[in-house]
Amino acid sequence: MAINPARKTRLKDVAAAAGVSSATASLILNDKTDAFPTSTIDRVRESAARLGYRPNALARSLRSQRTHTIGLISDEIATTPFAGAMIRGAQEAAWKAGHVLMHIDTEGDYEMEQAALEAMLERKVDGLVYARMHHQVVDIPDVLTEVPAVLLDAREPTETLASVVPDERSGAKGAVEHLIAMGHTRIGFVQCVDPIPAAYQRLDGFQTALKEAGLDYNERWTVIDPLEPGGHALEVDRLLAGSDRPTALFCFNDRMALGAYNSARRLGLRIPEDLSVVGFDNLETVAPWLDPGLTTVELPHYEMGRWAVDYLERLIDGESLAPEQHLMECPLIERNSVSRRQM
Amino acid sequence: MAINPARKTRLKDVAAAAGVSSATASLILNDKTDAFPTSTIDRVRESAARLGYRPNALARSLRSQRTHTIGLISDEIATTPFAGAMIRGAQEAAWKAGHVLMHIDTEGDYEMEQAALEAMLERKVDGLVYARMHHQVVDIPDVLTEVPAVLLDAREPTETLASVVPDERSGAKGAVEHLIAMGHTRIGFVQCVDPIPAAYQRLDGFQTALKEAGLDYNERWTVIDPLEPGGHALEVDRLLAGSDRPTALFCFNDRMALGAYNSARRLGLRIPEDLSVVGFDNLETVAPWLDPGLTTVELPHYEMGRWAVDYLERLIDGESLAPEQHLMECPLIERNSVSRRQM
Repeated sequence: MAINPARKTRLKDVAAAAGVSSATASLILNDKTDAFPTSTIDRVRESAARLGYRPNALARSLRSQRTHTIGLISDEIATTPFAGAMIRGAQEAAWKAGHVLMHIDTEGDYEMEQAALEAMLERKVDGLVYARMHHQVVDIPDVLTEVPAVLLDAREPTETLASVVPDERSGAKGAVEHLIAMGHTRIGFVQCVDPIPAAYQRLDGFQTALKEAGLDYNERWTVIDPLEPGGHALEVDRLLAGSDRPTALFCFNDRMALGAYNSARRLGLRIPEDLSVVGFDNLETVAPWLDPGLTTVELPHYEMGRWAVDYLERLIDGESLAPEQHLMECPLIERNSVSRRQM
Repeated sequence: MAINPARKTRLKDVAAAAGVSSATASLILNDKTDAFPTSTIDRVRESAARLGYRPNALARSLRSQRTHTIGLISDEIATTPFAGAMIRGAQEAAWKAGHVLMHIDTEGDYEMEQAALEAMLERKVDGLVYARMHHQVVDIPDVLTEVPAVLLDAREPTETLASVVPDERSGAKGAVEHLIAMGHTRIGFVQCVDPIPAAYQRLDGFQTALKEAGLDYNERWTVIDPLEPGGHALEVDRLLAGSDRPTALFCFNDRMALGAYNSARRLGLRIPEDLSVVGFDNLETVAPWLDPGLTTVELPHYEMGRWAVDYLERLIDGESLAPEQHLMECPLIERNSVSRRQM
């Protein structure tokens, strides 16, 4: 199938079909209709629709100083399997507002990010979403001050730009409160090794839930992520093989929960009869497929994506807003990996 | 942090700093340098760099009729966790060629796709990649004939556009040949219910490998995907509980392989000692984390993304190419779920 420039309808084709001048057609198609009778307006619009006339968005944008394009710059959201729902949420909010979402993943490369930001600003985006694959504290690039901008799954220390991140603390607290409500008092924590915000905030939520229930935090029951892809979960094995083992595990994420399932199987422990397990992420490729299905805390990626773009649209519309630092609730998704403990 | 228009450097600022006229600065920054001495050219470029001058890409594109932008329209690649590496491959190939990849996911919605295509063409993209999350045969939208275009993980019946899809048949054949080389002669197939190209092509590869090895295809050992998220793998259970059970399973995808692991555990069968398992996809959130790690066939998402954009760049550069229908090899990734069978 060859490229066929003859398919492209020009303004003068529309004008000829409607029996008006090009100037008249142009004014009407740019909604400057005051000077014309309804019949002419209708004729021009019908001709444009029938001939598939497509106005030149570049030229129109130069005139209007608005491109109706939002840029989303991220490290590796589209290219990894963890947080794509953020893009879906941002996309849907942008479409709803009549914007196209132009998206570039930089793979966390500094030079690629600089180039992506330049490319977005050269194309005169109306606003920018600056996103991370997981909750991070970032130093924002200077150029983010040139257009309306919102941080997605990222915060910056000075809180001068609006941001949305998951409420890791209350998500973790809710998960542990669920285990306590199911009668568990001996609850272990499988923790992440990286010093990221989620690590200390989820630990804080875990400890707060125990404290409020009058339970002691037992450091021996906190094991640092012993999992490597394809490796062995020796620390979790040791924890679960002990005589005073916990009856429930809260895992930093669903991958570690999968590791806990592997450990339980090696030790002959049944889930949930002998061991209850709760994860974090609600990873759609893992949590529902495990046997039994994993009870876990959802990272609200879709909702965060929507929130960021909805807020950005308000900035683009010229609303004067204090830069909100929004914490998005992380709901508990109950499946079958938690059982009631007889006390 | 307020938006600060004062930060924007204008052409006249660059000209003033370099001690030349705006016309001279404009010509030099648009690489029309013939009329000027090297010292002037250097001075203008240095001033532009120092002041952070950003040329207006919209205006430049109107002049050059090139936007250095490639559009990627997909159904749900960015927003689901299965094929993001295609975007990474496409992205990297585009950057290498000096293009920005503008990406829109349409979530498989027809009207959203029409709007996305219009938006891309209005923005005068230099070329389009039209992609699917998994191998599909599609009717292409008419507008794909207006610009250079390539299909990614999709084909169309008339083969008038170039396309790249996985070589499902040879990927499956290679997996089954591996099981046969490891001494297995009783090999089951856990098959997909959807009538998609991958389903019949992988079955064909499975049957061809058996036939070439002189083994009969045993229909009783082919079970249709019995897995639902959180449900029970009863068909696989029944197959594996039988007295003449297969010693190895080839699974349509990694999710079904995870289901086979669940079945094996319920029946007290060890992997790989009692049952060898091979998957398909090499899903990074699943295959390496299972215990034992899953031997599987990789879907070459990254390579397909690169191929599509590399080919598109050649079309954009004006090369006259017959529309290649490229089959991308699917390599076997060996982990620990296959054992040698004593014959």
